Amino acid sequence: VTAHDLPHAPQTTDDALFQSQLVEMPRPECLRKLALARTGRVAFDMPDGPVVLPVNVRVHGIDIFLRTAAGSELAEALHDRPASFQIDQLDEYRQTGWSVLVQGTANWVTEAELPRYPSERPVPWAGGERSLNIRIRANRVSGRILVG
Amino acid sequence: VTAHDLPHAPQTTDDALFQSQLVEMPRPECLRKLALARTGRVAFDMPDGPVVLPVNVRVHGIDIFLRTAAGSELAEALHDRPASFQIDQLDEYRQTGWSVLVQGTANWVTEAELPRYPSERPVPWAGGERSLNIRIRANRVSGRILVG
Repeated sequence: VTAHDLPHAPQTTDDALFQSQLVEMPRPECLRKLALARTGRVAFDMPDGPVVLPVNVRVHGIDIFLRTAAGSELAEALHDRPASFQIDQLDEYRQTGWSVLVQGTANWVTEAELPRYPSERPVPWAGGERSLNIRIRANRVSGRILVG
Repeated sequence: VTAHDLPHAPQTTDDALFQSQLVEMPRPECLRKLALARTGRVAFDMPDGPVVLPVNVRVHGIDIFLRTAAGSELAEALHDRPASFQIDQLDEYRQTGWSVLVQGTANWVTEAELPRYPSERPVPWAGGERSLNIRIRANRVSGRILVG
């Protein structure tokens, strides 16, 4: 399966930010934005509501890779469960922007399942032991552009 | 109940972005960041994984207000259900940043339940009919700072 075979997320035709000027971002552009992303937000469901946290990532095709500490809260939350990854860029002054959302499944993966080249692997900003590799594989990719 | 009475979210002691240099953001600073926010991300649970979308908001104490169209997908998703609101600012070059997460419950509210003054009410960027006011009332507020 390639990124281009994935179904689009059903388009939200309006929301509080983007309505009359909202246009769907073409899939190649979504994938280009994702490929360039080095930070973004991972989201997962908890009883008190979704948790949304900034993370360092590397994106390889339709796979989002991140690294955390084994036994951590994040590690437990991203083990064989639905998870999403989101990036956006908003210009409050111009009232323009875009966002891309990946909805998928998070799993722990082995070194062998990581992208082949070190430059394609996630590198966290801060020090510490983060031996656990996590992959969010996309089931849906959608993007939106607010044209000013 | 005031914002300062709310329990903190349990602190994630590490994640892929912030580990050894992660510090908890003091609650007054969380609330100050929220009060100044005009955009952010709303998150809610869906069967395919959490949906995270940019929105225009106004924050009044521990209440996040946004406006959308009655009958929209967003309106249905934010009706008497858990929802979260997130803001962050990340500097990839300096590898520093902060984020604030509000976990709460979303409800439709009447005009009478909105903040008193028009300047405190949400104003979407784009035109169109958005007659439905939504409030996310915080159950938990947490923030984190990455000090470089």
